[in-house]
Amino acid sequence: MWAFASDGDLEEGVSGEASSLAGTQELGNLVLVYDDNRISIEDDTTVAFTEDVGKRYEAYGWHVQHVDDGEDLAAVDAAFAAAKAETSRPSIIVLRTIIAWPAPNKQNTGAAHGSALGDDEVKATKEILGFDPEQTFEVAPEVIEHARTAVDRGQEAHAAWQEDFDAWQQSNPDRAALLERMTTRSLPEGFAQKLPSWDADRKGVATRKASGEVLAALFPELPELWGGSADLAESNNTAVKGEPSFVPASRQTKMWSGGPYGRILHFGVREHAMGAIMNGIALHGGTRVYGGTFLTFSDYMRGAVRLAALMQLPVTYVWTHDSIGLGEDGPTHQPIEHFAALRAIPGLDVVRPADANEVAVAWRTVLENNDRPAGLLLSRQNLPVFDRGDAGSAEGVARGAYVLAPASNEASGGTPEVILMGTGSEVQIAMAARDRLEADGIPTRVVSVPCVEWFAEQDDAYKNEVFPPTVRARVSVEAGVPMGWREFVGDAGRIVGLTHYGASAPYTVLYEKFGLTDEAVVAAARESI
Amino acid sequence: MWAFASDGDLEEGVSGEASSLAGTQELGNLVLVYDDNRISIEDDTTVAFTEDVGKRYEAYGWHVQHVDDGEDLAAVDAAFAAAKAETSRPSIIVLRTIIAWPAPNKQNTGAAHGSALGDDEVKATKEILGFDPEQTFEVAPEVIEHARTAVDRGQEAHAAWQEDFDAWQQSNPDRAALLERMTTRSLPEGFAQKLPSWDADRKGVATRKASGEVLAALFPELPELWGGSADLAESNNTAVKGEPSFVPASRQTKMWSGGPYGRILHFGVREHAMGAIMNGIALHGGTRVYGGTFLTFSDYMRGAVRLAALMQLPVTYVWTHDSIGLGEDGPTHQPIEHFAALRAIPGLDVVRPADANEVAVAWRTVLENNDRPAGLLLSRQNLPVFDRGDAGSAEGVARGAYVLAPASNEASGGTPEVILMGTGSEVQIAMAARDRLEADGIPTRVVSVPCVEWFAEQDDAYKNEVFPPTVRARVSVEAGVPMGWREFVGDAGRIVGLTHYGASAPYTVLYEKFGLTDEAVVAAARESI
Repeated sequence: MWAFASDGDLEEGVSGEASSLAGTQELGNLVLVYDDNRISIEDDTTVAFTEDVGKRYEAYGWHVQHVDDGEDLAAVDAAFAAAKAETSRPSIIVLRTIIAWPAPNKQNTGAAHGSALGDDEVKATKEILGFDPEQTFEVAPEVIEHARTAVDRGQEAHAAWQEDFDAWQQSNPDRAALLERMTTRSLPEGFAQKLPSWDADRKGVATRKASGEVLAALFPELPELWGGSADLAESNNTAVKGEPSFVPASRQTKMWSGGPYGRILHFGVREHAMGAIMNGIALHGGTRVYGGTFLTFSDYMRGAVRLAALMQLPVTYVWTHDSIGLGEDGPTHQPIEHFAALRAIPGLDVVRPADANEVAVAWRTVLENNDRPAGLLLSRQNLPVFDRGDAGSAEGVARGAYVLAPASNEASGGTPEVILMGTGSEVQIAMAARDRLEADGIPTRVVSVPCVEWFAEQDDAYKNEVFPPTVRARVSVEAGVPMGWREFVGDAGRIVGLTHYGASAPYTVLYEKFGLTDEAVVAAARESI
Repeated sequence: MWAFASDGDLEEGVSGEASSLAGTQELGNLVLVYDDNRISIEDDTTVAFTEDVGKRYEAYGWHVQHVDDGEDLAAVDAAFAAAKAETSRPSIIVLRTIIAWPAPNKQNTGAAHGSALGDDEVKATKEILGFDPEQTFEVAPEVIEHARTAVDRGQEAHAAWQEDFDAWQQSNPDRAALLERMTTRSLPEGFAQKLPSWDADRKGVATRKASGEVLAALFPELPELWGGSADLAESNNTAVKGEPSFVPASRQTKMWSGGPYGRILHFGVREHAMGAIMNGIALHGGTRVYGGTFLTFSDYMRGAVRLAALMQLPVTYVWTHDSIGLGEDGPTHQPIEHFAALRAIPGLDVVRPADANEVAVAWRTVLENNDRPAGLLLSRQNLPVFDRGDAGSAEGVARGAYVLAPASNEASGGTPEVILMGTGSEVQIAMAARDRLEADGIPTRVVSVPCVEWFAEQDDAYKNEVFPPTVRARVSVEAGVPMGWREFVGDAGRIVGLTHYGASAPYTVLYEKFGLTDEAVVAAARESI
């Protein structure tokens, strides 16, 4: 693996996070070439970047080489060879260069970083290099001829590899089939039958815990599945019990055994690098990776999440502690705006299951999509497992929104007087509000909306079935900013949410104090009607 | 300045960014005590954090000390004294400790990091320390007495300081008045009269450039104002020409002169640290700080932006290149979801001016608010300067939304048939659509909505004046995800926006291809009517 980095790349914290972990992981096949030209957009980096990069990488446990003149090709070649030969740890080559060399006026300037040299400077540079300044894209025939030999070399190497591969494929049909399945990111038949299910239970189970049980069930079925956490394994329920870790044998600890084939990743407290590393794993292909942290800390990895969405990479975020429901850790840890902020990212599926059975269908659906990232938003606190006898099947999760509880008059062909909707831990509030409204003779439907993006993909017939256009009395309830819900509730609807930060207290107190209650939903429903 | 950090803090990239810059800045009054206990939530940090932290800080140019036993108080005291004595560069003390020492069973475990010890373990620990295990919060009288002498010492020191301060105040009335003004974060009378204004101009000026001119006008008036960029000074227009930089004299470069009283900051390519440092500056008090980067990269600093909003800190973000209007840099650099994602943060003012005169009022209003952060979203490309002769005054910016162009029938007491609204660079599209609709005999009002948060603070009378409830035909236009606009346009309205990522092309091509045109707004208006 070869990576190339500029001064700016090494100033960004994410490269420090990833490089530190690469040192711990002893990634001997990684070579980083650092283009040490000491010029960035604000010109000479002396005003902002004066550290000893080589020494920093020694501190990370890397093999460090310095080449003092980037034009000294023999020295560069030797450094590359030495870096390849070092396989016990990652290598960095600190390659001192001069930006825009040998342009006579623009070399070693910030101007050459952000802008093209311009015609005159290009001509002057060509003269220095012995090219005809009037020619553009001039390439000598012998250079073309030499370059084209690479095609033959490549074809020969590929043919040899293909022969080896065909032989391996023939003598290892099962492993070849697995490789084919992993390469095409298809799922084994029947894997979903291994998913756990939960009986109705008022006390219930935290959706993060249900997610951990889903992972435990999937691990034997899907050898391509691996992942971990940014130092919150136990909180995120991302470490499957008994599974070895992906760590060098020498880095095993009392708590974590492992080796090169371990499937539990330890990212350390490095959310941004976790997101970036997940992108790298997905781009490499073959495996499916997940990574966990608290939902609030999705802010730290947002740059990487956006790139996953832009590149359509099937990575899965396990974001637990997904609301003020986490309680005592207080407002720094309580996501308020994150539901909306993540839904705003084009191409990211934001999935917030309402109970354990929704978690199982959510995980299955996430895995069935192999062309986009998804985030699972999971509760710290227990959530009741809904009675699916008289409630809608959790299969509805795959369609993004579904009728969890029809109004009492629907069986006899009636129309609900009001629709209550919610996500995750607030669906139980909608259900309790429904009981009250029904007791008062108001036929009330509850819709669970685990994934806005999946619902948007449904046809109009289904959308109108879930939200009949004639029913304009609607209330949404979600422990976050109202942003986005007006699309669902319409002008006549009401939104029960939060427009401010949380606080440190037991979660039951917070829900009460902040007005996220069945009483509030009932009141909003009456207003909307 | 004393800072205390754990293993996790030093794993996070933001601490690396800030520490590298602290080295460059030679912050000799900073001491970082690193609690090197090698335990985090996933237990022994060997699985994820094995670097040589002391060596890394040497690479940053820090003074590094190691104390091998955190219980050796004489060694700790000596290290603290040496760190204080070192004033030419920041100091780190790598203090080896054992977490939960001397708890007999929980010491040196991840369990002790995330959970309380429990009654039995607390009792056992008290026994080891020679306390009565049955007593809680037991403090010996001589300890209380000794601690209380700190109050006397503090009062004496404060009285001495007060005497000095009073003397200084009397002999320096002007500087004392300035200090008083800065301490209370009030603004000098008449400062706003120095703000530039622009004549109507179809070719116009980029709002980032207008912002740079505003800063240049404000710098002489507001000595408390300082700021910089994450290595994009020229692009963000954040460096006022001729102003010295805040850098050690030895770090001056050909492009940047400066010293300890410089007012231009160079953060390097470190957006997260920039946000965190701005928070620190604001918490220190006295000055007003701003920091710039491209709007897309607000993602990298989002954690710090959220904390600024949570802590109600008056810091200002200069986020330029605020849409696909930046053109050729392509989708990685083009914000699409950022308007919505930032508006989702409670307590953050998101301000997107439509022309240069809106920029001036926006900056003024941002500075007048001293209890919250604000982001200015500014264009790379030129935007026409609207003719304020027949358009609404830019003063309306301070109210968040205002009538920029009334419908033709309003002067004679008529009601608009449709309201077009937009922000920033898309307001000109609404204005062009208005021309077309008016030409077709449809009385059309245009509302500029630079700041949703400021508009939300207005009274209902003003809100209804800008958006008369009877006018239900409404169209919004903004080069971002539609999220949030339904609140303004209502069920009958239409939203012209983007639901996908951008592309690399000249911005005029992108606007055309992506349907952000006056034709599209006209068509949406006809649908809405």
